[in-house]
Amino acid sequence: MKTILILGGFGFLGSNLLNYIDRFLRNKYNVIVFDKLQDHPFGVKFECISKVYWGDFGNRQEVELLFMENKIDQVFHLVNSTVPATSVDIRFDIESNLLPTISFLELMDYYNVNNIVFISSGGAIYGNTCGRRHLENEDTFPISSYGIVKLAIEKYICMFNKRNNLTYLILRLSNPYGPFHYSTKQGLVNIALRKSKQKELLTIWGNGLNKKDYIFVEDFTELCMQLVTNEIKNEIINIGSGHSHSINEILEKVKSCDPSFQWEYIEKREFDNMTFELCLDKLNGYIKDFHFTSLETGIKKTLEWNNNKH
Amino acid sequence: MKTILILGGFGFLGSNLLNYIDRFLRNKYNVIVFDKLQDHPFGVKFECISKVYWGDFGNRQEVELLFMENKIDQVFHLVNSTVPATSVDIRFDIESNLLPTISFLELMDYYNVNNIVFISSGGAIYGNTCGRRHLENEDTFPISSYGIVKLAIEKYICMFNKRNNLTYLILRLSNPYGPFHYSTKQGLVNIALRKSKQKELLTIWGNGLNKKDYIFVEDFTELCMQLVTNEIKNEIINIGSGHSHSINEILEKVKSCDPSFQWEYIEKREFDNMTFELCLDKLNGYIKDFHFTSLETGIKKTLEWNNNKH
Repeated sequence: MKTILILGGFGFLGSNLLNYIDRFLRNKYNVIVFDKLQDHPFGVKFECISKVYWGDFGNRQEVELLFMENKIDQVFHLVNSTVPATSVDIRFDIESNLLPTISFLELMDYYNVNNIVFISSGGAIYGNTCGRRHLENEDTFPISSYGIVKLAIEKYICMFNKRNNLTYLILRLSNPYGPFHYSTKQGLVNIALRKSKQKELLTIWGNGLNKKDYIFVEDFTELCMQLVTNEIKNEIINIGSGHSHSINEILEKVKSCDPSFQWEYIEKREFDNMTFELCLDKLNGYIKDFHFTSLETGIKKTLEWNNNKH
Repeated sequence: MKTILILGGFGFLGSNLLNYIDRFLRNKYNVIVFDKLQDHPFGVKFECISKVYWGDFGNRQEVELLFMENKIDQVFHLVNSTVPATSVDIRFDIESNLLPTISFLELMDYYNVNNIVFISSGGAIYGNTCGRRHLENEDTFPISSYGIVKLAIEKYICMFNKRNNLTYLILRLSNPYGPFHYSTKQGLVNIALRKSKQKELLTIWGNGLNKKDYIFVEDFTELCMQLVTNEIKNEIINIGSGHSHSINEILEKVKSCDPSFQWEYIEKREFDNMTFELCLDKLNGYIKDFHFTSLETGIKKTLEWNNNKH
C-alpha cells in the first residue's frame, strides 16, 4: 500500500481525489492530508485518510514534520493561496506559493521522496489562445501572476527532475466544476449554481461571449488517478473535456434548471474575456476512449450533490 | 535628450553600453547609473553619466529615490545577483532578483516610466538546444534557477505590458566576451585570457566539446543600441553572433596567443556540457547585414584592451 500526501486535501480538487480514492482505490492508497483547514469544510469523513496535518504551507517546520513522521511515496501538490483575479499582489503570490513550493521540493529531495503530481493551470499559463487549441510544448503567455507562478513552479519541478531525479506529472487543468466546490472567487459553474440557489444576482465581467474548456471534476479525478496508477511520469499533460462553452451558455444552462436565476454584466477586467481551449491529443494518447461527462449531466450531478450535502 | 537609467551600469554589459554611448550617442542620452559599486571597478570615467546612485537593488527605498529625483525615459535592466553556477540557492535567487524586479516594475508603473530593456539569457532560458537553433517563440527548458528567474521576469514584464502599458525590449543574449569584463564566475573567453596572463591553470568542467554561441560584447552593444534607437518595442529577440565554438576551440585560440596557457578537465556538473545555438532570423530582420566580429578579432581586441587598461 502506497502512502500519498495530498497538499491542500480539503480543497475542491483534494476532496474529489479523496472521494475517488475512497470509492475505487481504498486498498491501494493510504492518504495523509496537509491543509490550512483543521477539518473538512463539509464535515465529510474520508476513510482513506490516515492522518490530517493542519498547517501553513509557508511554514517550513510544519511542512518538514510530514517527512519526519511519514514515509511518503507520492505527493499531490494542490495548494494555491491565490486565484488569477486575486494574484494582483505579486509579492504575496511569490512568497506564499513559489517560495514554499521550492522549500517543499528541497525537502522532498532531502527525504528521498521522488514522486510529485502538480496541478497546474491550462488557462492561466497559456493565456488567450484565440480559438487555437494549445499544445503542451508551445510557448506560454500567462497574463496573471497566478499563471506565471504556476509556470515557474513547473520549470523548477523540471529542474529538480534533471538535477535530483525527482519524477513528476504536471497536469495543466482547464476549468473544473462539480461536487465539493466552495470557493467564492473562482469556478463559474459552481458559483452560478450557488447564486441561483441563494436567489442572488450573479455579476459577470465582460459580455459573457468568451469560451473556455470546462470539465466535470469527477472526470478530472478519474483521468488524474488513471495517469498516476498507470505510472505516467515526467510529462506535462493538458486535461480538459475538449468542449468549450461561453459564459452565456453556462448561465442559460443554469437558468434552464432554475428559471428565476438572474445575472448582470459589468465592465471586463484585463484578465477576463479570455478564450481558451486545450489540445488533448497527449491525454488521449495515454487514456483511450474516455467518456467525458456532458455539461448538462455535470450540472445535474452538481445540483444533486449540492442538494444532498446538508 | 533622453534620460536613461542603467541598472548595473558598472558591470560588464553596463560598462560597454556606457562606452558605446560615450563614443557614438553622447548628444542623445543623459545617463543615470545605479550600481552596487560606488565607483567603476577600472576607474573609468564615462562622460555620458550625469549621476551615479550607489545602492542595493533589493532595497526599495534606495531604488525609489531614482524615480523621485529624476524624470527617466528609458531603463536598461542589467542587474543580476547570481550566475547559472551560483543560482543553487534558489530562495536567494528569487529574493534578490525576481522580487526586486517586481518592485521595480511597480515603481516604473507608479512613476509613469514606460520603457524597459531587459537583458535575458538565451543559454539559460532555452536549456540544451541539442544542435537546433532556438527560436524566440518556442518552449523553454531552463536547467538553472538563474534561467527560471530570467524567464519569470520576462513573463512579468509581458504582463505589465498587457496591464499597465509598459513597453519593453527583451534581449536573449548568448555568451558575450570582451572589454570591461571582471567576473571570476562566468565568461569563458575572458577568464581564459585572464588565467593565461596570470600564468594560472584553468579548470574546465566536462570534456570541452560542447559548443555555444559567443558574441563580442561591442557587437552586442551596437546591436542593442540600434534596436533601441530604432524604437523596436514589445519584442523578445535573440542576440548572438550566429557562430558557435566549442570550449576546446576557444582554449586553443587563447593558446595560440599565449603558448604557455594551460588547462585541466574535471568532472562535469549537471548544468555544464550544454550545447546551445540561437536562431537569429528575428534580429536579422531588424538589423540588416550586420558585420559580426570574428572570434579571432574579438580575442585580439580583448587582449589589447586587457593590456592597455592599467
